[in-house]
Amino acid sequence: MSKSIFYHAGCPVCVSAEHDIVKLIGNDNVTIVNIGEDRNRIPEAQNAGIQSVPALVTPTGNVLHINFGASMNDVIG
Amino acid sequence: MSKSIFYHAGCPVCVSAEHDIVKLIGNDNVTIVNIGEDRNRIPEAQNAGIQSVPALVTPTGNVLHINFGASMNDVIG
Repeated sequence: MSKSIFYHAGCPVCVSAEHDIVKLIGNDNVTIVNIGEDRNRIPEAQNAGIQSVPALVTPTGNVLHINFGASMNDVIG
Repeated sequence: MSKSIFYHAGCPVCVSAEHDIVKLIGNDNVTIVNIGEDRNRIPEAQNAGIQSVPALVTPTGNVLHINFGASMNDVIG
């Protein structure tokens, strides 16, 4: 199985969701990307269809918005 | 690991998220509850802190609201 990608921006809601997702699907099955720090990956997240963080993009390309930490506009600033 | 519980109400967003979650965390690790049909489990979902469906309650009791299908008020009707 290819990996999921978990996009977040370091917010408390993001960190809590990250811990839950890593526990549920396993550390080896998910790549964590902090688009608050790694800002050159913001366009990639937008292209994937992410509207808010935290969000998980599945190996098949579906976007699961998980709870609500910040909108993409908030992240872009 | 004890199981997560995925609460949904049969809506298209719910069904799509259910497929993704089952693929990601494995069929054996999640119990699926349709509170649109199994209405006597609505109070249990509310007590868990669920505000909208679909939502996943982790084994540690955290609620992950995944995308947005319907509010609990919509489900209660």
